Amino acid sequence: MNHKTKVNPGRFFEDFVLNQVIHHATPRTITAGDASLYIALTGARNPMHCSTPFANSLGYHSTPIDDLLAFHIAFGKTVPDISINAVANLGYADVRFLHPIFVGDTLHTSSQVIGLKQNSNGKSGVVWVRSTTTNQQNIVVLSWVRWVMVHKNALNVAAPKPVIPDLPNQVRIEDMHLPPYFKAHHEISNATGGQYYWEDYQAGERINHVAGATINPAEHTLATRLYQNNARLHFDDYLMKQSSFGQRLVYGGVVISLCRALSFEGLENALTILAINAGTHANPSFAGDTIYCATEVIDKYTLPGRDDMGALRLRMIGIKDCLPSELDAFKSETSDHPNVVLDLDYTVAMPRRGE
Amino acid sequence: MNHKTKVNPGRFFEDFVLNQVIHHATPRTITAGDASLYIALTGARNPMHCSTPFANSLGYHSTPIDDLLAFHIAFGKTVPDISINAVANLGYADVRFLHPIFVGDTLHTSSQVIGLKQNSNGKSGVVWVRSTTTNQQNIVVLSWVRWVMVHKNALNVAAPKPVIPDLPNQVRIEDMHLPPYFKAHHEISNATGGQYYWEDYQAGERINHVAGATINPAEHTLATRLYQNNARLHFDDYLMKQSSFGQRLVYGGVVISLCRALSFEGLENALTILAINAGTHANPSFAGDTIYCATEVIDKYTLPGRDDMGALRLRMIGIKDCLPSELDAFKSETSDHPNVVLDLDYTVAMPRRGE
Amino acid sequence: MNHKTKVNPGRFFEDFVLNQVIHHATPRTITAGDASLYIALTGARNPMHCSTPFANSLGYHSTPIDDLLAFHIAFGKTVPDISINAVANLGYADVRFLHPIFVGDTLHTSSQVIGLKQNSNGKSGVVWVRSTTTNQQNIVVLSWVRWVMVHKNALNVAAPKPVIPDLPNQVRIEDMHLPPYFKAHHEISNATGGQYYWEDYQAGERINHVAGATINPAEHTLATRLYQNNARLHFDDYLMKQSSFGQRLVYGGVVISLCRALSFEGLENALTILAINAGTHANPSFAGDTIYCATEVIDKYTLPGRDDMGALRLRMIGIKDCLPSELDAFKSETSDHPNVVLDLDYTVAMPRRGE
Repeated sequence: MNHKTKVNPGRFFEDFVLNQVIHHATPRTITAGDASLYIALTGARNPMHCSTPFANSLGYHSTPIDDLLAFHIAFGKTVPDISINAVANLGYADVRFLHPIFVGDTLHTSSQVIGLKQNSNGKSGVVWVRSTTTNQQNIVVLSWVRWVMVHKNALNVAAPKPVIPDLPNQVRIEDMHLPPYFKAHHEISNATGGQYYWEDYQAGERINHVAGATINPAEHTLATRLYQNNARLHFDDYLMKQSSFGQRLVYGGVVISLCRALSFEGLENALTILAINAGTHANPSFAGDTIYCATEVIDKYTLPGRDDMGALRLRMIGIKDCLPSELDAFKSETSDHPNVVLDLDYTVAMPRRGE
Repeated sequence: MNHKTKVNPGRFFEDFVLNQVIHHATPRTITAGDASLYIALTGARNPMHCSTPFANSLGYHSTPIDDLLAFHIAFGKTVPDISINAVANLGYADVRFLHPIFVGDTLHTSSQVIGLKQNSNGKSGVVWVRSTTTNQQNIVVLSWVRWVMVHKNALNVAAPKPVIPDLPNQVRIEDMHLPPYFKAHHEISNATGGQYYWEDYQAGERINHVAGATINPAEHTLATRLYQNNARLHFDDYLMKQSSFGQRLVYGGVVISLCRALSFEGLENALTILAINAGTHANPSFAGDTIYCATEVIDKYTLPGRDDMGALRLRMIGIKDCLPSELDAFKSETSDHPNVVLDLDYTVAMPRRGE
Repeated sequence: MNHKTKVNPGRFFEDFVLNQVIHHATPRTITAGDASLYIALTGARNPMHCSTPFANSLGYHSTPIDDLLAFHIAFGKTVPDISINAVANLGYADVRFLHPIFVGDTLHTSSQVIGLKQNSNGKSGVVWVRSTTTNQQNIVVLSWVRWVMVHKNALNVAAPKPVIPDLPNQVRIEDMHLPPYFKAHHEISNATGGQYYWEDYQAGERINHVAGATINPAEHTLATRLYQNNARLHFDDYLMKQSSFGQRLVYGGVVISLCRALSFEGLENALTILAINAGTHANPSFAGDTIYCATEVIDKYTLPGRDDMGALRLRMIGIKDCLPSELDAFKSETSDHPNVVLDLDYTVAMPRRGE
């Protein structure tokens, strides 16, 4: 740390030590204001997160907040310590949604360094961290791995022994948690407006969601600030005008949330996210981009001990300035297409028709 | 429904059946966050909706939310089922504000088809619906009629028998409701800052409100999303660039709320809306427009059983990029003027001086 | 007042009378929505205002709202009565933060005219007011002096006898209040992420905060509306295009809050503001400006009866479109530099290391 200026420059690649645990600052109590802002910022319409009687009908004592709102707030805590000097966020894996989060809960996040690999140019390296978020009762509510490419500052420091963690290609079923009191019922479609259940979706099926959302400048910055994510490249246009992007970048979590909201039409009954198996931001997004979303059904399976809900493993493809239907031709190599901004492999709990 | 893609295309003209009742999805619990956002989005300063002690002094057990915030949220529920394929929102009538709505209340809306008339071109038709919003105790809190022009999809379907509902030209006095516990008192002006009472307004009087509000892109989209109104033409700039408008349209409810807030200066004591008698969006609004408002007093009358408040029937004229004083010359044919974006006939409860 | 139009034109210079007390309208109950919006609008990360368990650990029964959110809301009340016809806000002084403010508290503000001086041109004058904000228990929570230059309307009215109030150049230590139950402890840095304590700061030290924030159009208008500050020059672009600025001005309070949030990195443990001693907006800010902040330590001293926290008197320099490090050369004459938008002298409570 530069004691003279007192401004913490953040960790560079050589500052990360294998197995080191970092406790992130800014514990955060979730409020009703956060939930309202999330609706205003994303257009989310999942009634589980905006109707207390509906949440009660599912067994919840109050309204759980949106899975992704919780994830973004939890994630935001890690930025000052992990990625403030990142060149790029390379990916997410094994994102587990372990416990519902309610208004009034306070989130605290810590991260453990689980992998390190210096790049051959000696100027940067990849850091893998497992981050864990607990609530005020010290219950683990979220857990995920991400890896980022980070600048090296002291180039003469020797490279660490390379350690690349072994990551599952999808979250294991034993790491997916539905609260035991949470039960799907037959009036769900009254609240969601959706007519399709677990039985109606088939692997290989693709849904081109029709709605699009243009990202206004203030929308992405308000969202990113709400999450207390302070990565400078989202906020500082004076700085970014001098970068190769020429402008501020949109935080990837903003795109994930927009795609989740856009994909509501066709996945109305996908009440809750069980896991994010893997995810990459294939290309950057900027203010002014119009985001569309296509969903591909990767797989479906039953959940142990549950006959009311099954799992759907889905691919969420975020696309900018191009209709999902126009991208069908690029299906197999989607991630290489310049209009693809998100490629996310995730798993939802979908109520079963049970007929 | 297109079972193959699972994306509900919404109802076309031929899908509406006379007397059909449609239950809209996404029940919504109102929160303190919604009320704060409404202030931030509109600049509303009516103390009845932002001061608990003042609301208590009027007889309310807690702070009722703004009439128009409630209306926009209730209205938003109807969009996916009624107007997602609308060519135009033609008008509102008989909008009744029947019961106060508080933070914690959950709103549910349903609509009944009360009129149908196919256009002579056979490609579209007008649908009239009566929408009704209830709270979690199944008390009717809002009720209104609107009519929209909707595209026909299956052009070969025979036209329905035309039925045009008989609508009152103003909400009947027996459909206006003030809670019996709600009493105006003589210290209202301390909280509102307004010096004018029911006795001070005269039919034919016009107030040119001086403040203007320029609509920023993110403001109208945040508001429209908060109301969970998913009409695509407000959000998708990629789509709208190909339309005759060349850009996103501003949701008409955003203009109504801005005009209500702008008209606070001169109507400070108009604590609550009793009715919207009729309303049209004379011309579209776009981001960048500066909205001004003029009020014309249409009529005034006493309210049965109340000596503390009377009714003022008002005309709210929303004007863009032109001062209200410059529009005086156009008074009689206001709605035809290209700068007029709103022409709303509504009734407020105004405390009486009682001297 | 123009009875004919009912729109209150606001006070002109000749309408202010020495010692007059003005009770401002729109009492305001603070909600969790206000606190969330403040985070989204500023990026504030001070855990005292966003973590209930952390606030509890400091002795608070619940989470106090941000000092500046309270100040801006309290201040906004004064605008319709004091500065709606202001040519310029000339300065603040003796801003006392006297009592913590919590969600659920209701703020009411009044102002007393304490100084008047007509300008030699006879067309305007300077008005000094002492504004006082109370909560619903009538406890004084905030108090400040500001002075504004206001247009004269009736030019033939005689100039008042000039009275220029005697203002302290800093808030007196007996006017700084820390609640007796509020105690700093040794785990603060876990929540703030900051490693520096009172002992680590020295008079004359300068911190160039590295983060910058570009002001988006909707961000400053949403903030200013949230504070119910209705000064027209922030909202009406049609009007402002005809002014010498050519565009809307950003409310100075928006810049103060951004600078406070940007200066978190380097002042993480500065939990609460004790006083604003003086402040000027050296140059106007506009949407699109990127704001940076530098802090200079003016002085440090102990607080009577407290060994857990001391005071730091700081200079907050807000800079637009120029890195703080580039401005070092201009240190002594900072306020004259065209890129300086804020020069604020304030005092914070900083926990002591106590070693």
